[in-house]
Amino acid sequence: MVEIDTNFRELIKNKEWKELKDFANELDAVQLARLIEDVSEGDEVILFRLINRKLSKEVFQLLSFSKQEQIIEGLVQNGRKLSNLINDLEPDDRTAFFEELPGKITQRLIQLLSPEERKIAVQLLGYPENSIGRLMTPEYVAVKPTDTITSTFEHIRTYGKDSETLNVIYIVDTEWKLIDDIKIKEILLASPNQKIEELMDFHFIALNASDDQEVAVKTFRDYDRVALPVINAEGVLIGIVTVDDIMDVEEEESTEDFQKFGSLHSAITDPLRARVFNLYKNRIFWLLALVFMNVFSGSAISSFEEVIQSMVSLVFFLPLLIDSGGNAGAQSATLMIRSLAVGDVKLSDWHKLIGKELIVSVLLGVTMAMGAALIASFRAPEIILVVSVSMILIVLTGSLIGLLLPFIFTKLKIDPATASAPLITSIADICGVLIYFSIASLWLL
Amino acid sequence: MVEIDTNFRELIKNKEWKELKDFANELDAVQLARLIEDVSEGDEVILFRLINRKLSKEVFQLLSFSKQEQIIEGLVQNGRKLSNLINDLEPDDRTAFFEELPGKITQRLIQLLSPEERKIAVQLLGYPENSIGRLMTPEYVAVKPTDTITSTFEHIRTYGKDSETLNVIYIVDTEWKLIDDIKIKEILLASPNQKIEELMDFHFIALNASDDQEVAVKTFRDYDRVALPVINAEGVLIGIVTVDDIMDVEEEESTEDFQKFGSLHSAITDPLRARVFNLYKNRIFWLLALVFMNVFSGSAISSFEEVIQSMVSLVFFLPLLIDSGGNAGAQSATLMIRSLAVGDVKLSDWHKLIGKELIVSVLLGVTMAMGAALIASFRAPEIILVVSVSMILIVLTGSLIGLLLPFIFTKLKIDPATASAPLITSIADICGVLIYFSIASLWLL
Repeated sequence: MVEIDTNFRELIKNKEWKELKDFANELDAVQLARLIEDVSEGDEVILFRLINRKLSKEVFQLLSFSKQEQIIEGLVQNGRKLSNLINDLEPDDRTAFFEELPGKITQRLIQLLSPEERKIAVQLLGYPENSIGRLMTPEYVAVKPTDTITSTFEHIRTYGKDSETLNVIYIVDTEWKLIDDIKIKEILLASPNQKIEELMDFHFIALNASDDQEVAVKTFRDYDRVALPVINAEGVLIGIVTVDDIMDVEEEESTEDFQKFGSLHSAITDPLRARVFNLYKNRIFWLLALVFMNVFSGSAISSFEEVIQSMVSLVFFLPLLIDSGGNAGAQSATLMIRSLAVGDVKLSDWHKLIGKELIVSVLLGVTMAMGAALIASFRAPEIILVVSVSMILIVLTGSLIGLLLPFIFTKLKIDPATASAPLITSIADICGVLIYFSIASLWLL
Repeated sequence: MVEIDTNFRELIKNKEWKELKDFANELDAVQLARLIEDVSEGDEVILFRLINRKLSKEVFQLLSFSKQEQIIEGLVQNGRKLSNLINDLEPDDRTAFFEELPGKITQRLIQLLSPEERKIAVQLLGYPENSIGRLMTPEYVAVKPTDTITSTFEHIRTYGKDSETLNVIYIVDTEWKLIDDIKIKEILLASPNQKIEELMDFHFIALNASDDQEVAVKTFRDYDRVALPVINAEGVLIGIVTVDDIMDVEEEESTEDFQKFGSLHSAITDPLRARVFNLYKNRIFWLLALVFMNVFSGSAISSFEEVIQSMVSLVFFLPLLIDSGGNAGAQSATLMIRSLAVGDVKLSDWHKLIGKELIVSVLLGVTMAMGAALIASFRAPEIILVVSVSMILIVLTGSLIGLLLPFIFTKLKIDPATASAPLITSIADICGVLIYFSIASLWLL
């Protein structure tokens, strides 16, 4: 054991996390428990943190009660120290280091921490950014099925003061696994001598701590709740999420989608206070990318130099035609992006929408072609014809691009809102130039 | 009195609502009360509905208890009949007809109705579309300050079953005026013998039934509540609004803004089920409007025919330049529209943003001009110069248009999201054409 210990201290000193982890996971639960009982205070937390979840649960149960307390204490107190430590880790080492803790430890840890420390802790516990774990608070009331209504009220009176919401009471088993939720209304309406288990229907909705916050928004929307319990991979209740936090997430997501569609690189929330450089940085990415995309429309035009030279008046209708394609495309994209975000449309629905889009865009194209013909009415008849036919084809193409791009991006795991109005305009431009001048060359040369 | 009665029946028969109203408001409270006591059943409701609020409150108090009940009954039962009747009314007559009822009648009326009837009733009660009145439900629990905690619990057990939420208990006076709200948590934590008034702080947030639903969204966001009470002009508690309904409103508003920015005329929520004609109708308005706006960019180009004829290669950079102005403008507009919607920026803030926007857009313009110069690098030096200088000026103009248009629309009481990406693109196009070819004519001819 002395050898193991020396080896272990050596690795800790050199911050060889990966090696430490491999080393720790070669030992069995009994060996690890003995090692943890032996090492000097402070190091047990680091060692414990290196063990994979399944094993660490076993190890924890083997430890003496005082050592168990020490580990939890250590996790709480070393929160800050550990957070400095993780800055030295590579991202993949970090995930390896911060595997999810056994449920009951997570739950106790979170309940012991102050709100500030908790922010660091959920990072430490390995819940990724934008995960539900980052939103949760431990301020809930949980009781056992065998409790009576009267003892539940007493429990609420004693522990309910810090609870963020008392609208729902959670029911857990001895392992702190969530087994039901009961509205405070039902408890208020029950008779005092009833037991909690008489009210239970074992039917509840819970969020997973590691799921994305978008899942939480959808669940709140579908089930009309004011708070939802959060469980970890083992089903242990580790916190709740309240609807006010969800409203903030929803607002942020809408803002992000909206701004992405306006081709901002990442969301800016307060333009009054935003710094010039940040504004510049957020805007220049797409603006410059689109400048270089325009090389294609430019070179498309240059390949039609002959037809332009012979009939300069064709250029007069260029902005009209290419804009119309972009505008129709922006409309389709708006519809799809928002429908995908809200959940009205799923990725697999794209082919169901194509047929309708074709009909609608031909109708739009024909109407707009008539408008364009009116504008071109004092020109030669062949120009009127070229402009009208081009309009129909360009609107059709633009609409289809606008419809499909959000689906393609979703498929590629890119936010569909990246199919911004400016991006679609630029793509529609290239198509528009090619369609317009091709038809013109065909009929006018 | 017989004469009045005949006159009144004549007017009712001819649906002369305006005259009826004028006629009714010429009488005093005592005369009206006597008239209402005398008229045959059914007509008393119509007559009562014609009296202005202040007077109707007096009249109601003068009526016999049985007649009071009849009016409330009549309002409930004639809901459907009345809703057919209002379809015949002109909008301004309708507002004249449906002035807000005295608070206590509204409150009792809403509590007596079934959820279906309530939808019609809130229309009848004169709460405009998108007002908070249209969202409220009467399923709350209210107690008096003199009630004890024990009697409150009894009250909850008796009346709480239908209550949508029991998270907050409302305190009203004998006139049913809202005087406080208390979280169920505080009631649960209080000792059974305490009186409600001992818990009261007379500090509460309430919504006005006639306010816009946007106000409700902002209030919920600011105060992190799960339900808020709704009062009428007299301060009488007439219902509550719950956060799940507010989340729906928020989602709808975001969708509307988003789709307007994509130049859809009005919001489409489910494109999978939307009908072709509706899609067409919602899209064609702006598309066609923008086609005709492009007359200006077309005629701007045609006035530069000479310079284009002498140097066709200028046309190659046309989409690049006009798009860049539109793109920069779309970004600024996105930022402003969302900030205005969320409340980060107010109408009066526009001048604070101009200075920053100028700096940012010059920086953007210079960067993009360098990109454009790179693309144009194999052209004549004077073309590179024209393209670069135009780029800076066009990006600057586009950004300012995008920044200011949402403010101008807000000032004109038009939804700022009407400053859609396509609209800004079209306006930026005209400016772009003028700037580009003016500079070209100046330096190249």
